[in-house]
Amino acid sequence: MVKVTVWNENRHEQQNQIVSGLYPNGIHGIISEFLQVEGFDVRTATLDEPEHGLTDEVLINTDVLIWWGHLAHDEVQDEIVEKVKQRVLEGMGLIVLHSGHFSKIFKSLMGTSCDLKWREAGEKERLWIVNPGHPITAGIPEYLELEQEEMYGEHFDIPQPEELIFISWFEGGEVFRSGCTYTRGNGKVFYFRPGHETYPTYHNKQIQRVIINAVKWAAPAHCQRPIYGYSNPLEPLKGGTTK
Amino acid sequence: MVKVTVWNENRHEQQNQIVSGLYPNGIHGIISEFLQVEGFDVRTATLDEPEHGLTDEVLINTDVLIWWGHLAHDEVQDEIVEKVKQRVLEGMGLIVLHSGHFSKIFKSLMGTSCDLKWREAGEKERLWIVNPGHPITAGIPEYLELEQEEMYGEHFDIPQPEELIFISWFEGGEVFRSGCTYTRGNGKVFYFRPGHETYPTYHNKQIQRVIINAVKWAAPAHCQRPIYGYSNPLEPLKGGTTK
Amino acid sequence: MVKVTVWNENRHEQQNQIVSGLYPNGIHGIISEFLQVEGFDVRTATLDEPEHGLTDEVLINTDVLIWWGHLAHDEVQDEIVEKVKQRVLEGMGLIVLHSGHFSKIFKSLMGTSCDLKWREAGEKERLWIVNPGHPITAGIPEYLELEQEEMYGEHFDIPQPEELIFISWFEGGEVFRSGCTYTRGNGKVFYFRPGHETYPTYHNKQIQRVIINAVKWAAPAHCQRPIYGYSNPLEPLKGGTTK
Amino acid sequence: MVKVTVWNENRHEQQNQIVSGLYPNGIHGIISEFLQVEGFDVRTATLDEPEHGLTDEVLINTDVLIWWGHLAHDEVQDEIVEKVKQRVLEGMGLIVLHSGHFSKIFKSLMGTSCDLKWREAGEKERLWIVNPGHPITAGIPEYLELEQEEMYGEHFDIPQPEELIFISWFEGGEVFRSGCTYTRGNGKVFYFRPGHETYPTYHNKQIQRVIINAVKWAAPAHCQRPIYGYSNPLEPLKGGTTK
Repeated sequence: MVKVTVWNENRHEQQNQIVSGLYPNGIHGIISEFLQVEGFDVRTATLDEPEHGLTDEVLINTDVLIWWGHLAHDEVQDEIVEKVKQRVLEGMGLIVLHSGHFSKIFKSLMGTSCDLKWREAGEKERLWIVNPGHPITAGIPEYLELEQEEMYGEHFDIPQPEELIFISWFEGGEVFRSGCTYTRGNGKVFYFRPGHETYPTYHNKQIQRVIINAVKWAAPAHCQRPIYGYSNPLEPLKGGTTK
Repeated sequence: MVKVTVWNENRHEQQNQIVSGLYPNGIHGIISEFLQVEGFDVRTATLDEPEHGLTDEVLINTDVLIWWGHLAHDEVQDEIVEKVKQRVLEGMGLIVLHSGHFSKIFKSLMGTSCDLKWREAGEKERLWIVNPGHPITAGIPEYLELEQEEMYGEHFDIPQPEELIFISWFEGGEVFRSGCTYTRGNGKVFYFRPGHETYPTYHNKQIQRVIINAVKWAAPAHCQRPIYGYSNPLEPLKGGTTK
Repeated sequence: MVKVTVWNENRHEQQNQIVSGLYPNGIHGIISEFLQVEGFDVRTATLDEPEHGLTDEVLINTDVLIWWGHLAHDEVQDEIVEKVKQRVLEGMGLIVLHSGHFSKIFKSLMGTSCDLKWREAGEKERLWIVNPGHPITAGIPEYLELEQEEMYGEHFDIPQPEELIFISWFEGGEVFRSGCTYTRGNGKVFYFRPGHETYPTYHNKQIQRVIINAVKWAAPAHCQRPIYGYSNPLEPLKGGTTK
Repeated sequence: MVKVTVWNENRHEQQNQIVSGLYPNGIHGIISEFLQVEGFDVRTATLDEPEHGLTDEVLINTDVLIWWGHLAHDEVQDEIVEKVKQRVLEGMGLIVLHSGHFSKIFKSLMGTSCDLKWREAGEKERLWIVNPGHPITAGIPEYLELEQEEMYGEHFDIPQPEELIFISWFEGGEVFRSGCTYTRGNGKVFYFRPGHETYPTYHNKQIQRVIINAVKWAAPAHCQRPIYGYSNPLEPLKGGTTK
């Protein structure tokens, strides 16, 4: 059974009644609920817990980590970010949602600014599938529609995705690479754009389906890391081995 | 005219007579010499200069930065690394040589450990071209041979290259992705494996040709960065713009 | 000087007064004109010429071939398509425009159906740059706008582009991967979406700029093909060479 | 249960006692045997059967097709190749083994010559994993060794793989991209180099493991094809829909 940890900053939920109205158990709460229904072994972790809830014991027992953050990226300790990164390189899957594009962990794995255009105007977003056989799109029709979302627009300053899964159309005239996969070390990374805190995006069944699919996709096939460092020759050398 | 800065740690040259014998003007010296012959506008910079020779003025006047480091990656100040990274995102080309795989700037742009297998046994390396139409391979036959080189072996912990140009065969039985391109922001990055300090690799005319080609390839086509941040709609929104 | 051949089906121009009004010298005429102004060595070729104007002598003297076709893809002889394909593998650049997505040469190089959604309703298209440092985008602002174009929508059944340069937003709610690069053998391929025959798209200076940039990008760096077939060992074999 | 069809040319087995000694039930026989043990629903098909054993009924009931051919690529009927290709675009996985690099189906899906260097000298091959977290490598150590294999060397004239999984080292001095993945339409394609008919390669448990893993990986997540062709606007057009 895939072990999932849903990490959430959990600040908007404390500060904004719209958000707490939409997500009374927090964004981590709703995500963990629909993942549990699907049969995953789910726990949650939030910023204000000790070690942000991401102790060594939690990380070693996590196959896939989901990340939602926005207001307080800077409050995430560098030491924890580094541990999460090492765990991704070992094979833990990472799913970064929406404003997590600016999280320390995502920027560190991408190597770019991860900046973008944005606008909060409650406009329509339509996410088109551009990789129709990909397992992350299973059960999704040709496009998803969200009546109200925050706009994120290109240029999105990320390395070219290994696989581009979704492209968003926005009512206001922009486009966005909304579903992007990467490999880092043994780990798989999926960025998925939707999920602004003041809209009911995570109640949408198709959005839930994409996240469920992504958990299955990101779960490690195997976590055996290669051996690095000094290595004896496997074949005889003409000059002999001098070291 | 493309403006190139050749950065070298320049430590082995002070400590090891084999290295200073091979490269009396330093590794930066020989590289800048063959680049000047080719007509580039070249300067050098080294670790022990103030700001490692990479002042704002130098960086803004650099189209392509070449990086060689090994012993003292940790002595490179984080603040300078960050400036170099910003300049890459703005469009400056970056060519990372050999042991520079473990430099702060390369690891920061890749997002992975950049670890690998290695062995210093003076063995034969043969670099095969796997992208024969790529401008970086112009003038190079199907493969390059180096009679003596340090071995670097897979797994090389890098993101999948956007373009894989060379694969090395080593006498001792390993292979390596030896020529790899990436885009980060507006900037192009090329990693090129050969160049251990105790061998005459940078005297090899074909190695020089690859580096010359790479400088031309990495030179920015244009450095205009996109506009990021809040953005007004380009089309009327049904609900009006609420922000 | 880069030698360009602009190939056009040249049928709409004979049949439709709107098209002949917009392009009195044909679509090949206007493209060759703005390329000549840029200093390229340009010739044209059309379907109804012998061998469709693509004789061995023409092909061997072409660095970059531009392809526009729509009504008569099936009338292009398989033998000529095969010659063009061999020339691409040898290093000739190929720029496929708009409805050329369904040309025999493009489908043959892609290996997929190259199918898509379409609608001819004179709607607005906005092409966003998603690869801002790419030479094909030099001199272009963040997006191009075309007041009236045919819509092409996803899913576009192509292999994942090696580089995705433009994504289109359409007024009617669709998106499209409008600028895509590929390598096939030694040759570079660029697909560029806009250019429906009943709109003045090729009069647009920014569209012209993209095509000019693409010609420079697609021109072969060098056309030396690798050696294929039986190959003697470069290193001694323990068992000896038995063939 | 994944439905696998193992297709084999099955000619060497009729003509060469070394081959029939190694594979008394044919190459298709041994592959189907170890796949059955793994629990897949397996059938075989060979060149000399009517429609090469690939009737519409067989294809529609195949999730993953494995392809081994060598002597008689030209005898495979174009009509059957076209049916296989359509089925791949619909989502059927395709695993192409060894000399299948020159099969009509592989060349048609790649769009290139698929040519390479080769030598039959019974030399050592070592396949290094360069994508350690990929499911195709599950259960495989850092490299596989085959004491005797035919050599295939670069340049291998294929489009750049979407994922490069294995790189081979050969005793005679060459390297090869030996495990390559592609997406074509909804279908996944995996090319795997080893498997010359006169060596016991398919008896090797690790080679079997790679093929088993590849079947799981290539099995379609879902086969729903996108809708292509004329499409009504999803949003109101300013000018109205004119077609």
